[in-house]
Amino acid sequence: MSNNTVAAYAAPAPGAPLEKTTITRRELGPHDIRIDIEYAGICHSDIHTVQGDWGERQYPIVPGHEIAGVVTAVGAEVTRYAVGDRAGIGCIVDSCRTCDNCRAGLQQYCTGELGMVGTYAATGRDGEQTQGGYAQAIVVDENYALRIPEGIPLDAAAPLLCAGITLYSPLRHWQAGPGKKVAIVGLGGLGHLGVKLAHAMGAEVTVLSQSLRKKDDGLRLGADHYRATSDPATFEELAGTFDLILNTVSADLDLDAYLGLLRTGGTMVQLGAPEKPQSVSPFALVAQRKSYAGSMIGGIPETQEMLDFCAEHGITAEIELIRAEQVNEAYERVIASDVRYRFVIDTATI
Amino acid sequence: MSNNTVAAYAAPAPGAPLEKTTITRRELGPHDIRIDIEYAGICHSDIHTVQGDWGERQYPIVPGHEIAGVVTAVGAEVTRYAVGDRAGIGCIVDSCRTCDNCRAGLQQYCTGELGMVGTYAATGRDGEQTQGGYAQAIVVDENYALRIPEGIPLDAAAPLLCAGITLYSPLRHWQAGPGKKVAIVGLGGLGHLGVKLAHAMGAEVTVLSQSLRKKDDGLRLGADHYRATSDPATFEELAGTFDLILNTVSADLDLDAYLGLLRTGGTMVQLGAPEKPQSVSPFALVAQRKSYAGSMIGGIPETQEMLDFCAEHGITAEIELIRAEQVNEAYERVIASDVRYRFVIDTATI
Repeated sequence: MSNNTVAAYAAPAPGAPLEKTTITRRELGPHDIRIDIEYAGICHSDIHTVQGDWGERQYPIVPGHEIAGVVTAVGAEVTRYAVGDRAGIGCIVDSCRTCDNCRAGLQQYCTGELGMVGTYAATGRDGEQTQGGYAQAIVVDENYALRIPEGIPLDAAAPLLCAGITLYSPLRHWQAGPGKKVAIVGLGGLGHLGVKLAHAMGAEVTVLSQSLRKKDDGLRLGADHYRATSDPATFEELAGTFDLILNTVSADLDLDAYLGLLRTGGTMVQLGAPEKPQSVSPFALVAQRKSYAGSMIGGIPETQEMLDFCAEHGITAEIELIRAEQVNEAYERVIASDVRYRFVIDTATI
Repeated sequence: MSNNTVAAYAAPAPGAPLEKTTITRRELGPHDIRIDIEYAGICHSDIHTVQGDWGERQYPIVPGHEIAGVVTAVGAEVTRYAVGDRAGIGCIVDSCRTCDNCRAGLQQYCTGELGMVGTYAATGRDGEQTQGGYAQAIVVDENYALRIPEGIPLDAAAPLLCAGITLYSPLRHWQAGPGKKVAIVGLGGLGHLGVKLAHAMGAEVTVLSQSLRKKDDGLRLGADHYRATSDPATFEELAGTFDLILNTVSADLDLDAYLGLLRTGGTMVQLGAPEKPQSVSPFALVAQRKSYAGSMIGGIPETQEMLDFCAEHGITAEIELIRAEQVNEAYERVIASDVRYRFVIDTATI
């Protein structure tokens, strides 16, 4: 195999099980770095994409946008990385670089013609389809790579690149911190990092979960309170409580009930996007200046800030490390919400 | 008639025409002032309330929460007003005064047991139903009165007390100002003041109206642009434009279309509350960190700030002054959106 041909796990067709294959990475450009991938997290959006839930794509698809590894080669004009550096890639591998958002470091909201180029199943600047992290190596522009600080193990760092930043960015944007009451809806791959991050920022954290099944975990991870949303008393007793509610659940919720949990001026932020339109009673917003908002991952500078914050506060994902051949079984378990809290593929097993 | 018995216009029953009557104001308490009302604006919510659209009330109801007049008596412990002062009353005549919101001057969002006491059709601290401004005088705690600066005529000032603050508060909260693009949906009693205020704050203002019928007015009032929402090209050409959209229209709108007009991080604020739940696609919010929010009038300190701002910038409402006996006809015209831009009752004609 040439240096550019790497082993990977790919979905050959919509809904088909992933299988081992090989893919070809691009030649190292002057601004590119090559990362030997050691670990790749499994994100629920990997599953949606390969199943075709989010529209037609070109197959095969190698999913994976929670990538951690080590730099093995650098292009001639690379300045920020050297061979041997620990590096990660999240959901973004390119963007227009010239629009207001890109200039502001908000590459995830790129409004240029190119738009945000996703790490897989997207069309890159060269017209080729991007392929993700369930693979042994990847080539990426150094400006879209992240530095993984020493002191965070690479396997437990991988999920920070998507799940971590997805929570970190709205917590910062809506100013979670001391004196603020934050609720995290759902204690899964996203939610468990939301608990850790909001706690580290100094907020008072409540988990709102369907049942109390994971209550002990939630409290151990840093939650101050843990309440079941299946219990109507939760919505009565916590009415008007939260400054910020981060909803990690993509299922349809009774939004008005959740908006009732916000205090004056509070914001409920949607992190996943249910496919169906949601119903909101404007009165719930008007009567107490509440907001219903959305947020999507984070830009490159903020992702680096998040990794540094995690290193400082000893935050990593709770993971279950799997071999590559277990990926299809892992997908079934993610769909069944049977993971505590993130599967990470040991890519040495591909 | 005793000093406490005053002439007024009241709705005797749900949906019945308003008719002349007398009501009794409370005895002047130590912290109360008595205001001889000179002008009272007609707000669309007056009509909703007397028609019973917003729930059962006790009749007769004297509507009116855009009140301007002159102080004619002060209680023994009043410190802030003297006989002869120009004074106004908006939508709030009392609140708990002890909750966090009241302490912060956000009386409109009072969370205490008493709650915000509306100027009419609400139950006051004394258990009596409040009666509003379509009357010759009113007694109010000095802490809920506003000072109307010299230089603003009382008639054109009256609508500022509800319509004005309803626009001013969200413009300030969401930081309208130089470099910001603000859209005002609907050029009516609320919207025309939104145009004036946003323009005075230095924002670039666009009116989004069903048709171009009032375009000349809109531009004269301070709008930089005026676009018809009946024209699909408006939504294509202005996609991703606005930092802030203030929706003064209570009718059902295609919210996703309006959310598409926001730029990254933008907010659409609902000022009226359609009775039916609205449909929102979370993807529209998530993909560009947008918010859908609500706002309701403003607190006492901010209402004073707004009046002072209006005096400084020469802003008043565009009004059509009417005699009291024209009130029912005026209601019909408000319902038909046939007013430029606010009816004000000359209460000397009651």
